This record gives sequence, C-alpha cells and structure tokens, in this order.
Amino acid sequence: MFHGKVKAVAFDADDTLWVNEPFFDRAKAEIADMMSCYVPAERFTEFLEHTQSRNINVFGYGVKSFVISMIEAANKVADGRIKASDIARIIELGRDMLNSPVEHIEGVESVLHALGGEYKLLMITKGDVAEQQRKISLSGMSVYFEHIEILAEKDEAAYERILHKHSIRHEEFLMVGNSVKSDVLPVVGIGGSAVHIPFHTTWAHEVVSLDDLCGREYVELSRASELLPLLLSL
Amino acid sequence: MFHGKVKAVAFDADDTLWVNEPFFDRAKAEIADMMSCYVPAERFTEFLEHTQSRNINVFGYGVKSFVISMIEAANKVADGRIKASDIARIIELGRDMLNSPVEHIEGVESVLHALGGEYKLLMITKGDVAEQQRKISLSGMSVYFEHIEILAEKDEAAYERILHKHSIRHEEFLMVGNSVKSDVLPVVGIGGSAVHIPFHTTWAHEVVSLDDLCGREYVELSRASELLPLLLSL
Repeated sequence: MFHGKVKAVAFDADDTLWVNEPFFDRAKAEIADMMSCYVPAERFTEFLEHTQSRNINVFGYGVKSFVISMIEAANKVADGRIKASDIARIIELGRDMLNSPVEHIEGVESVLHALGGEYKLLMITKGDVAEQQRKISLSGMSVYFEHIEILAEKDEAAYERILHKHSIRHEEFLMVGNSVKSDVLPVVGIGGSAVHIPFHTTWAHEVVSLDDLCGREYVELSRASELLPLLLSL
Repeated sequence: MFHGKVKAVAFDADDTLWVNEPFFDRAKAEIADMMSCYVPAERFTEFLEHTQSRNINVFGYGVKSFVISMIEAANKVADGRIKASDIARIIELGRDMLNSPVEHIEGVESVLHALGGEYKLLMITKGDVAEQQRKISLSGMSVYFEHIEILAEKDEAAYERILHKHSIRHEEFLMVGNSVKSDVLPVVGIGGSAVHIPFHTTWAHEVVSLDDLCGREYVELSRASELLPLLLSL
C-alpha cells in the first residue's frame, strides 16, 4: 500500500546517493583474476561471496571486513601457495577503496534540494560507521538531512526504532533506496511506503528471492528525479 | 588546575571500565612467537606497532584494523615465505577477539552506581563503533550513563564538541581514563579536569613523552574507588 500523507522521506546512501558497489565489484574482479591461476574466476567470486556473508556476523559490513574476507578466501583457494604480493595487493586495494572519492548519483542532489522545503528528510544507511561518516562528509550532502542514521542492520526493528525516535508515524514515512532487501521489504513490512530505485549492480548479499516479494507492494522508479512527480501525485 | 565545581564526570571505556588491551597484547605475543622463525619477537612487535600506527589513518582503530595490520606486518617480515596457516591463524585470532566476553575492571561499577545520583555521567570512548557498541551492550553498564559518545579521535576539538553538545562548562567537566594522551592531556588542554587511572598495560600508540606532560596538571589515582573521596574533598 502506498500512502498519500507522506511527511518524512528517507534515503539510503550507498548506491542511492552515491556510487559504492562498483568499487567492491572492481576489487572483486581484480582479485578473482589474480587468483585465476588457482581457480576459475567465477568459482573464486562465489567462494568470496560465501566468505563475506559468513563474516558479516563477526566482522560486519564495510571495506575492512571485505579486505579480511578477500584475504581469507584467497588464502583458502590458493591452498598453501598464496604469494606475498597477492596479500599485499589485497590490502592495497582496501586502502585505495578507503581513500576513493565520493561520486554523487546523477540527479539526486537536485531532488534533495527540491524536497527539502516540503518534507522532513532522513538519511538511513548501514555499514561501518567510520566509513559511512567519511563518505557523508566528502559527499557534502549532510546539509539536506534533518537526521542521519547509520545502522548495523536495516531490518523492521531498526526502522521501528527510527520512526519512534523521530516521532514519525508509519503512514507518513517513505523510504527510498536501491536495495529491496534493506530499503523496501522491512519498511513495507511495518506499514510504511517504499520506492525502489535499482542501481545497475547489486551485491549478491542484498538480492532477495521472488518469494520474499510475495504480496509486498512498492513503487519502482528508474531514477531519483521521478520521485518529484510521484510525490506530487499523492 | 583541578576544579571544585565538577558536575559532569566522564569515563573512558577500554581499560577504564572494562579490560581491553590484554586481548591485543595476547594476540601480539602469539603472532610475534609464530613469526619468530623469521625475526626475533621484539623486532616483529616493533614492526607491527609501526604498521598499526601508520594504518590508523586509513583503517582506524579496532580489531579489524588490527587484523589487517598483523597480516601486513607478518607478510612483510616473512619476506615471501608466509604460510597459509599463519594467515588463517591471524584471522581466527581476530574472530576470537570480536567474540570475547567483556570483563569489568574491578570496583568500577560500584563507583558508577555511587556517582550516578550526584553527577551527570558520560562514557566517552574512541574506536570502531560496532566493536564499542558490542562491548557497551555486553558490559551492561550503559544504564549508568546519561550520554555515550564513540569518537574517531579524542582530541581537544572532540572534547570541545561534546561539552558544547551537552551544555557542560569546562570547569564543571572531569574526565577519568587510563590514557594520558586521550583522556588527560586534551581535557586539561581545554580547561577541564582529568583523573588518570593507569591500567597495567598501555598500547605504545597511546604513550606520551615527558615533554607532552610539561605544565599539565592532573590527578593520578590507582583505582576507581579513590574517585569518591577525591570528589568529596573538592
């Protein structure tokens, strides 16, 4: 159900406000290629995904956890023959990712500017707090948001806490993001509204099955600028 | 100068409220021993300290950064001959550290309990946010604190921001912690009061030279319970 009385619009950050996943994709592709003398690239990528998902519980999200997972996966796959230069390269890739610039997703900033006067705007992201803070700061976008929340997980309980904390009613809340799993399903699940704006690449960990979507209604847009006519039409 | 009108007492967390450094020390000692076929343990420890300090800028504080630094240092020191089992062991140590229980420092909880009615209590710590949140939660100590702040660095600017945010005047503020560098000097530097309670082990990165201490006045206690008579005497 899509509500007509939206007062608060919340935006996911990674791959909604700025480019993120391509940095991980490029690193994965390079390491898969580097390890292709041991296993085919697709098999390494699969094993890395598995390692990453298993490690989230302990090491969390973000680049540091990713670096540890890459080293762990490469070390296992090389079966005792990993090269010192391979390990050094993985750490260097992590360092580069943490020093990379922040690239806005096209058109998003003007949407934030346009919505700012009419709606209470929130940024709701998850991941390593220091890494997110670095990107928030470099993005220059914090000026548009009344509240910025960096969560460990974006599940129903987390969204409930945020709505409660900022006294936002469920039917007044609209979440915008690129992840059906994190930005859409839990929000619709607690009675809020959600807009999905797919990014051209989605991390396997965030992909949901069709079963999960069953009966959940949300709006899918192809770019942020389409939010304005959508909100006007409510 | 030690002020008499203290209204807010802030506590550092790692090695002030709960045991932290010994987990790192034990991991360092084990890895230094593991690498002793390549270099003497003291030389490895020194090289690891250097690697850690250099990496803080990019990878920050905490266990994940420590794991990456240990792998980087071991990889360099082994000079192309690092064993897969060595890398696996370092990652396993990190996992163990992140799953370790939280052990209160003796006597601190009863001090918090006694001070709670009289003073505004704050916890001011630095490090990886997810790791600190895990320890805060496991410690069960959050109930004693009106505000909990997890900072990237504990420098004068950071303390100024906290005092401003919570409307605490400099002369009303007392910081208690085990690190002269992070808990004492920046607080005294902005006109607050500080109590140093040394822990039996201090990370080399936190050690200050005698020059840094020049002219800075603070109180040194040997245990938290001595805070009560000190505050009563003001």
